[in-house]
Amino acid sequence: MSKIRHALKVKREDDFAKWYQEVVSAADMAEESGVRGCMVIKPWGYGIWERIQRLLDDRIKAEGHENCYFPIFIPLGNFEREAEHVEGFAKEMAVVTHHRLIGDGEGRLIPDPEARLEEPLIVRPTSETIFGDAMARWVQSWRDLPLKLNQWANVVRWEMRTRMFLRTSEFLWQEGHTAHADMAEAKEHTLRMLEVYRACAEDDLAMPVIAGEKPEHERFPGAVETWSIEAMMQDGKALQAGTSHYLGTNFSQAAGIKYQDREGDQQLCHTTSWGVSTRMVGGVIMTHGDDDGLRVPPAIAPYQVVILPMLRDDDGDAALLAYCEQIAAGLTAKDALREPVRVLLDRKPGKAAAKRWDWVRKGAPLIVEVGPRDMDKGNVALLRRDTLWNQDNGKPAFRFIGKDEFVGEVAGLLEDIQRALFEEAAQRRDENITRGIDTMDALKAFYSGKQRYPGWAEVQWAKPTGAALDKVVEQLKALKLTVRNVPRNAEPAGGSCIFTGEPAVERIYVARAY
Amino acid sequence: MSKIRHALKVKREDDFAKWYQEVVSAADMAEESGVRGCMVIKPWGYGIWERIQRLLDDRIKAEGHENCYFPIFIPLGNFEREAEHVEGFAKEMAVVTHHRLIGDGEGRLIPDPEARLEEPLIVRPTSETIFGDAMARWVQSWRDLPLKLNQWANVVRWEMRTRMFLRTSEFLWQEGHTAHADMAEAKEHTLRMLEVYRACAEDDLAMPVIAGEKPEHERFPGAVETWSIEAMMQDGKALQAGTSHYLGTNFSQAAGIKYQDREGDQQLCHTTSWGVSTRMVGGVIMTHGDDDGLRVPPAIAPYQVVILPMLRDDDGDAALLAYCEQIAAGLTAKDALREPVRVLLDRKPGKAAAKRWDWVRKGAPLIVEVGPRDMDKGNVALLRRDTLWNQDNGKPAFRFIGKDEFVGEVAGLLEDIQRALFEEAAQRRDENITRGIDTMDALKAFYSGKQRYPGWAEVQWAKPTGAALDKVVEQLKALKLTVRNVPRNAEPAGGSCIFTGEPAVERIYVARAY
Repeated sequence: MSKIRHALKVKREDDFAKWYQEVVSAADMAEESGVRGCMVIKPWGYGIWERIQRLLDDRIKAEGHENCYFPIFIPLGNFEREAEHVEGFAKEMAVVTHHRLIGDGEGRLIPDPEARLEEPLIVRPTSETIFGDAMARWVQSWRDLPLKLNQWANVVRWEMRTRMFLRTSEFLWQEGHTAHADMAEAKEHTLRMLEVYRACAEDDLAMPVIAGEKPEHERFPGAVETWSIEAMMQDGKALQAGTSHYLGTNFSQAAGIKYQDREGDQQLCHTTSWGVSTRMVGGVIMTHGDDDGLRVPPAIAPYQVVILPMLRDDDGDAALLAYCEQIAAGLTAKDALREPVRVLLDRKPGKAAAKRWDWVRKGAPLIVEVGPRDMDKGNVALLRRDTLWNQDNGKPAFRFIGKDEFVGEVAGLLEDIQRALFEEAAQRRDENITRGIDTMDALKAFYSGKQRYPGWAEVQWAKPTGAALDKVVEQLKALKLTVRNVPRNAEPAGGSCIFTGEPAVERIYVARAY
Repeated sequence: MSKIRHALKVKREDDFAKWYQEVVSAADMAEESGVRGCMVIKPWGYGIWERIQRLLDDRIKAEGHENCYFPIFIPLGNFEREAEHVEGFAKEMAVVTHHRLIGDGEGRLIPDPEARLEEPLIVRPTSETIFGDAMARWVQSWRDLPLKLNQWANVVRWEMRTRMFLRTSEFLWQEGHTAHADMAEAKEHTLRMLEVYRACAEDDLAMPVIAGEKPEHERFPGAVETWSIEAMMQDGKALQAGTSHYLGTNFSQAAGIKYQDREGDQQLCHTTSWGVSTRMVGGVIMTHGDDDGLRVPPAIAPYQVVILPMLRDDDGDAALLAYCEQIAAGLTAKDALREPVRVLLDRKPGKAAAKRWDWVRKGAPLIVEVGPRDMDKGNVALLRRDTLWNQDNGKPAFRFIGKDEFVGEVAGLLEDIQRALFEEAAQRRDENITRGIDTMDALKAFYSGKQRYPGWAEVQWAKPTGAALDKVVEQLKALKLTVRNVPRNAEPAGGSCIFTGEPAVERIYVARAY
């Protein structure tokens, strides 16, 4: 048995859901707000989101999109226009009915009955309809196309069962909305943004994903095609981490987004939309967290290096702080992953050991402790969060290294951690995809087996639609399974449909999912 | 009479309010959304806000604050706790009463009567109370102080009369919330953030401001001290562009934000809050706009240089575009105002002259036209937006300059424009502050005079409070005037109170205001 005493109370293998909650809390990322289904995102959690946001925003702008901002309120009538869309969203939304409060005469406040809105307003669950209204005004001619917009915003979908970052009533996201002259360009753009999401997930979050098309029954309400990136969490479940939709002319028709083509004829635009949200932060936790807390990939770590001076509240502190400041300045002057290194010199009062474990739980990529003796030798004590333990003696794997050597190595270390986290996750993902299951009985046996976290199955199917698809969904549901997506660039199908025995036409992933 | 034919239909001197609306629309910054009181912020307007946000965020973080995110919904009960606060805000707020829509059986959607919330939720008008709840959880000991938080968010205050950027029901802002061990530190922090706002307004927005304390009746609900920065618009009216509040222990008391001091005693925290909003964009328009549209200060311009190739839709276009790309690359490699130069090569179809005037109206600081003849000579035709016209011939003041020379000069040009815009506004502001008015009759005469845009008056007063202050406010209101603030670092008062004739204790600014 390992001598290691991990920093968390709950281990991943014992209770993954409880472990997740403990990481969120122990890494000081978020907490319940007291408002039903809404969380408070604390600085460390928000800092990670800010990093994701900054990197993804750069990617979105590099594809020629411009940011803008639309109202948080959408008139109820907008939801009545696009039939399929309203069907999908009409259920759980926050409805504003009054615009004033008054005293009830007994010391309490109530909505003022005199201030009832004629038409209730909906707090946006997504903004296709209100972007559509504007696009109809802004697009007149082929010269106005393509129109490529994005917004960063909060959205609300009333959720009965919530989980921090993964499913909350309010969440933060970006939603891109574009209008194109024809189907080919719009479809191409849908896939281009799917690729942007794949690159963001894999290169920035070090989170391997499968990019592919969602089956018919999992499409966004009103979409013609929905594509997703799917990541495997450490409990083998899938997390849909981003979606990109080709909307055809459905929303253009409803909102009247038309243009005059070069020949002078009126045409409907083809539109797309695509979004990723704070849910991605949950994906980072369940991809990279371990039994000591979170491990943040350096590219999205608010601080990549945390320096902990071992202060003693005496005269020696000033020299020690000066030494640490010098190291911090040296690090900040270096670039890693194409940006200046982000360093925190943590001067907060408190015992160095307690602070070390706080930063271990938060998952800062490199933790540097500096005591008076290290200073005297010109050294630092370096801890790599991704390889925290000396497996032989069960102690933290400190490396004592000259400060200048450390500054010289920092970029390489951070880039190595970024790569190592991705490779570890990719290997685990690949090991947990099972192929070759070709009957429902085999699938049932596989998912009813002893394996605690059975992962995903890649199976083949005949791509049923309509009622035949409903039947498949039912069968899978009985096993708590869902179809994740049809991967792009997969091997062609070569067997028979696992559901019907007919010749298969494509490969799909089935899995339990968040 | 000037031969110049300006790009806008309305001139500032003819109808300032109408001129403002025309700039917002002609510069393509924002438009009505169809949702009462809410605007759509279009890419150019949002791009300016993003720049303000980025620069201010850096300043806020440099002062040791961390960003976080709190729920958009605040339980009604929170507003009932802090009496003065609710008094100030209880009037006009968006109230969420239901969490589901259902069909009414006649093809329409209605709030589901089964899904009425037990306690209504308020869309945040500001977040003191919900931050307060969290601070009470997060602060336990003196070691946890100071706690310095900030959030970027949307807020809603139901407004009956709205004006784009200046007063909208939903707006974007940042709100800082801090907790401190004692009054001295909290007051010092209140002023420190006021100084951050002054620096942001003057150095980033090139908008001169007067920083000072608001009088008692203009305090934020629940605050002990409210400080503001006030800018003078070109119609002589004041715009309150940012506020910083020392909240004493009022919110700590209501939310229970307490800490154990070094001696082991429980103490209430002293808190502050401070915010600036998209209103600042309105301030930029009314400070720097002219009869040709907006002039964006280079520090906050989404693009600082716009290159317009004079395309002819023929074989020569490729060479011209290559020439422009080379210039763009040269510019992007330069730094101006401590950041890489932001360049747009505008390839959109359309006539070059029409596109030039679009960018004049939008106010890009430098507009560069490049035709085949310019290319042959290795030149560009350069237009400085801040000095657009040749006053002698009434034509745009193009300067023909070698492309390499231009690339070499660009940083100096942009820094010069930034400085020139500030100086022009500061000079106008100073010329429009009238001193020496020492009786109400003289004040009345001054503001009833022929001067269309009379500006501000610096007067002296005895700092009345309570009922005496109410009387002063009434008198000023009859002249449509308000007290703006008591400037910091002003000359000591040396006369008599303009309202009472008593010895004056301080100088104040009075003005008409937005």
